[in-house]
Amino acid sequence: MTLQQTISTSTEDLMANAIRALAMDAVQAANSGHPGAPMGMADVATVLFNRFMSVDPRDDTWPDRDRFVMSAGHGSMLVYAINHLLGYDDMPIDQLRRFRQLGSRTAGHPEYGHAKGIETTTGPLGQGISTAVGMALAERMMNARFGSDLVDHYTYVIAGDGCLMEGISHEAIDLAGHLNLSRLIVFWDDNGITIDGGTDLSTSTDQLARFAAAGWHVASVDGHDKTAIAAAIETARADGRPSMIACKTVIGYGAPSKQGTHGVHGAPLGDDEIAATREALGWSWPPFEVPPEVRDAWRAVAARGAEARSAWARRLFESPRADAFRAAHAPTDATALDAAITAYKHRLSADAPKVATRKASEMALEVVNGTLPNTVGGSADLTGSNNTKTSGQTPVTPGDYAGSYIHYGIREHGMAAAMNGIALHGGLKPYGGTFLAFADYCRPAMRLSSLMGVPVVYVMTHDSIGLGEDGPTHQPVETLASLRAMPNHLVFRPADAVETAEAWQIAMTQTATPSTLALSRQGLPTVRTTHTDANLTARGAYVLRDVAKRDVTLIATGSEVEIALAAYEALAAEGIAAAVVSAPCFELFAEQTPEYRAEVLGNAPRVGIEAAIRQGWDLMLRPEDGFIGMTGFGASAPAPELYRHFGITAEAATGLAKDLI
Amino acid sequence: MTLQQTISTSTEDLMANAIRALAMDAVQAANSGHPGAPMGMADVATVLFNRFMSVDPRDDTWPDRDRFVMSAGHGSMLVYAINHLLGYDDMPIDQLRRFRQLGSRTAGHPEYGHAKGIETTTGPLGQGISTAVGMALAERMMNARFGSDLVDHYTYVIAGDGCLMEGISHEAIDLAGHLNLSRLIVFWDDNGITIDGGTDLSTSTDQLARFAAAGWHVASVDGHDKTAIAAAIETARADGRPSMIACKTVIGYGAPSKQGTHGVHGAPLGDDEIAATREALGWSWPPFEVPPEVRDAWRAVAARGAEARSAWARRLFESPRADAFRAAHAPTDATALDAAITAYKHRLSADAPKVATRKASEMALEVVNGTLPNTVGGSADLTGSNNTKTSGQTPVTPGDYAGSYIHYGIREHGMAAAMNGIALHGGLKPYGGTFLAFADYCRPAMRLSSLMGVPVVYVMTHDSIGLGEDGPTHQPVETLASLRAMPNHLVFRPADAVETAEAWQIAMTQTATPSTLALSRQGLPTVRTTHTDANLTARGAYVLRDVAKRDVTLIATGSEVEIALAAYEALAAEGIAAAVVSAPCFELFAEQTPEYRAEVLGNAPRVGIEAAIRQGWDLMLRPEDGFIGMTGFGASAPAPELYRHFGITAEAATGLAKDLI
Repeated sequence: MTLQQTISTSTEDLMANAIRALAMDAVQAANSGHPGAPMGMADVATVLFNRFMSVDPRDDTWPDRDRFVMSAGHGSMLVYAINHLLGYDDMPIDQLRRFRQLGSRTAGHPEYGHAKGIETTTGPLGQGISTAVGMALAERMMNARFGSDLVDHYTYVIAGDGCLMEGISHEAIDLAGHLNLSRLIVFWDDNGITIDGGTDLSTSTDQLARFAAAGWHVASVDGHDKTAIAAAIETARADGRPSMIACKTVIGYGAPSKQGTHGVHGAPLGDDEIAATREALGWSWPPFEVPPEVRDAWRAVAARGAEARSAWARRLFESPRADAFRAAHAPTDATALDAAITAYKHRLSADAPKVATRKASEMALEVVNGTLPNTVGGSADLTGSNNTKTSGQTPVTPGDYAGSYIHYGIREHGMAAAMNGIALHGGLKPYGGTFLAFADYCRPAMRLSSLMGVPVVYVMTHDSIGLGEDGPTHQPVETLASLRAMPNHLVFRPADAVETAEAWQIAMTQTATPSTLALSRQGLPTVRTTHTDANLTARGAYVLRDVAKRDVTLIATGSEVEIALAAYEALAAEGIAAAVVSAPCFELFAEQTPEYRAEVLGNAPRVGIEAAIRQGWDLMLRPEDGFIGMTGFGASAPAPELYRHFGITAEAATGLAKDLI
Repeated sequence: MTLQQTISTSTEDLMANAIRALAMDAVQAANSGHPGAPMGMADVATVLFNRFMSVDPRDDTWPDRDRFVMSAGHGSMLVYAINHLLGYDDMPIDQLRRFRQLGSRTAGHPEYGHAKGIETTTGPLGQGISTAVGMALAERMMNARFGSDLVDHYTYVIAGDGCLMEGISHEAIDLAGHLNLSRLIVFWDDNGITIDGGTDLSTSTDQLARFAAAGWHVASVDGHDKTAIAAAIETARADGRPSMIACKTVIGYGAPSKQGTHGVHGAPLGDDEIAATREALGWSWPPFEVPPEVRDAWRAVAARGAEARSAWARRLFESPRADAFRAAHAPTDATALDAAITAYKHRLSADAPKVATRKASEMALEVVNGTLPNTVGGSADLTGSNNTKTSGQTPVTPGDYAGSYIHYGIREHGMAAAMNGIALHGGLKPYGGTFLAFADYCRPAMRLSSLMGVPVVYVMTHDSIGLGEDGPTHQPVETLASLRAMPNHLVFRPADAVETAEAWQIAMTQTATPSTLALSRQGLPTVRTTHTDANLTARGAYVLRDVAKRDVTLIATGSEVEIALAAYEALAAEGIAAAVVSAPCFELFAEQTPEYRAEVLGNAPRVGIEAAIRQGWDLMLRPEDGFIGMTGFGASAPAPELYRHFGITAEAATGLAKDLI
């Protein structure tokens, strides 16, 4: 197909060329960015929006809108161009002129929260498609709860070769295929080009066969044949399985001398090539100018969406489930949760159970899930170990989405991304479990939770050498530090059932911050035997045992608070006055006033105790203070032996305290 | 098939039942562990070892041995039982009795280096199969270099459902299929069971179709039919593609009331069930006892391997390539590398180039690759950005393994695991590149590099907000801290071309520690304009600019050393004496004597400068010292604007220094 043959004056051609022109002009103005993908996928995106997508730029929070995810996030100009053309009020042409500039909404990659109509942050490849699986799952789950008159929409994804090479895509694709997520439609931008050159440098996979093996409907089309694209979408929408449409495209389509090469992937075209592209596409308007008839055509898409939203709003108004639907989308009812947790804490302080905090987490979840109607639990195949399933939960199964528990399979990364998608979709509050050591597998998606400010909850059990015999591959030693390093992420390591309940209370009422609960495998005594209505964990650290005049302050987290208390007793027996500080959440402690922090930490010598490396403890400790923890990887043995072997004991704490005094 | 029908007295049945008995007895003795997989896969493993594997327990380092990887690492007792039966001298029966005990070689999961015949550490699912891809690639590459008389062996893998659900398996399988790694044969333990229950809880994937889509030869057999297993292995060995053999097995095979259920996956069988299993299998010997005829049968496998090794040793002795082969397997010739790097540093100090450290890394690699014959480069599709390919390197392509550069594709995790496998195989020294932010994608495999002590080199460019417009998804802020948290891992952040060369010199001569080089996208001046033969980076931190009496010490890494030097000048102009410390490697600095560290850091107030979060800087800074860096995620804008926006400037450093004095 020569360029001449492709020039057309049909409205959709103009609509697509508007995307191409805006993309190449914005990248040129920024002197940075990726014109190749937006230009290559402009036809597919135009057909999708013009004929199928239902969005209303006047209300980007409309729950029943179709979702569009640009998983190939480097092609962000496709999103910005479309959102500008649709008329989102926060995406005037000036934003496109300021592509990739400080303070603009048009970041290098689409950033959730920076502008309306960006459903999720993409850029790290494979995340978009995997987050979209969560969105499509949430759609089916909300549909099961509220019916098709309120919830009935599609999730569309544009994925590139990179997205499909990334491992996370395997987890996402398999999960979507297994759960029959029929409202998920993925367009693969099959342009045969990666950064290093042709895709044949590094892959020979038959993607159609691969998706089919995972239970997907698959199709292949010329990504510049609008009739074929539309027909493929029609068929995909009607299919009962998730769909993948391979779109054979020319990367940088329209740029006469550069299209179809990796030179057009991630660099400005240059003035000469841009002029030649205008000529070839028959696009005679100056940079950043879109003629009225093209604007009108795009505004018609928005108008159709606005009509659909109006009709939906009428249905909601008339629905007997309206209140429940609105409640599901409202912020968590903290009052009800607070009352339930407080009552539960009363019982705990009285009963003083000795339980692993993973078990305590299950006990707290019984309260949480009994109070909040829209939690969604799950585990990456460690349900019985993570204790994530409560008595009332039934699993979601292929075709039946009424349950509230997801068997994510052995797919930690896919689970984390799916939870992001569920939370972003709205209406549901996801939490999911794995072993803390495998936070490493989840980490790229956890980073997006933090970057986007999505309040999902990671339930991570087996949080130290205390897991025992499984050995160093399963024993976190650096994991707490690595998670505490992440901005906008609350890392809780509760010491007992009371702190675990408080951690859940905080995590479930976050609106813009994800949480990780690091929980023990081994049983731990209740250390908070005196009830407080106040959530002490919310202070990050607090004095658990105080003395009139401190000789030393022992600071510990999680399972090591028990050790600190034993050291406190041993020191007391020798006439040494130790205070014990429990520090379940460093991030929240860092947010307290300097006065509170000084009061908690005191002026006496300090001993930190945590079965992990010291990094991050400078929040609590001065250079002259002591630390008892790990300096390298763990080992395989029964837990009590490991604690003795690595010297994390009350005796060691007592000895170090005396050395420091 | 009832148990009665399966009882047989053939030698291989006895050999397999020996594995089963040892596995269930050891798990019972430990009261912890996984009997299901070893019992289910005992027949496959017996046929594999008895009829095909070529290993010699008297020399576990024999380069041309077949590799066996138990990717389903929780089935570690399969490995220990076999290695005991084969007669490895470090695996007496007492080790099996002490399964999962402190100090034993029989850790909960197979740990590389703990015992002979453990080719790699497994346990984190998906790592084994992905590491094995690196081994199988290394075999082909060494074969291309040294011919089939010296290098001609297979890599066999047992993978479970978990390994195949993990995303990393996708990256590994696609890469192996693309590169036609015909000496790789994977047995899938298709037992239909995961921890949560039946695999139908979470997956519907047609694994045979999936592997076929990636270019593999696939077959399916009854995993308890030894004739069929042997035939499938024969066919797989003859095929020109990598092979996957789906082995339909009964988990916990032989345990009458528990086999085929998830109850047998990860818990001891109990005394009653063990007795019933002995009865059902016709295995009348007491725990940990193996009758002589079974021992003899297994020792015959070892004897065959010893013969093969003898024949190979004769071939090596007679080979004209013997010296080169031995050299490839010897530790790096540090003398030659030192001389080459020193000469190169001479030139650098004189030329004082202003280059990005990623470019400086390429320049250093020209020296490294020109000196060491067995380096293997690569990148996860960022070759031109990571600057990992030097002038003499040609890529490995499907069927042609003579090259020394791997296009890993957009598969960071698979690349990291493959590098582990290449290094573990022996004969080759791998390094590979991606963006530093995507260390998160590699992290589970990087952790295994550190845990095993495999000296691979991670080349991670675009190491801060200095990458500019790509924005927060691509900008590391917590990544340095998260990598510094990892035990046994050297994290280098060189300030200029000289430090970059020194970092490479250190990284390439490590024998038991992996390294990460964090490198800038943006150009940096040469700060080491005075040549030293000594490798100053090896001290971790050193005084770059000194003064007679310090008023303040400015400590910086990488691209921020330039800022520290500018602050030094500005302070000098105001009559304030600042020392500048460059700190390219915190881990190496921590290893220096207290005297050296005190001398470098001085007693004056200190200002740390790094475009990253402060966590980890307590190695350098006291609570009263200052830090200039990041407190949250980055943003999308040109790099100089971002440095100003986030206040990481010489002016800020100057101001903070004056505040502290």
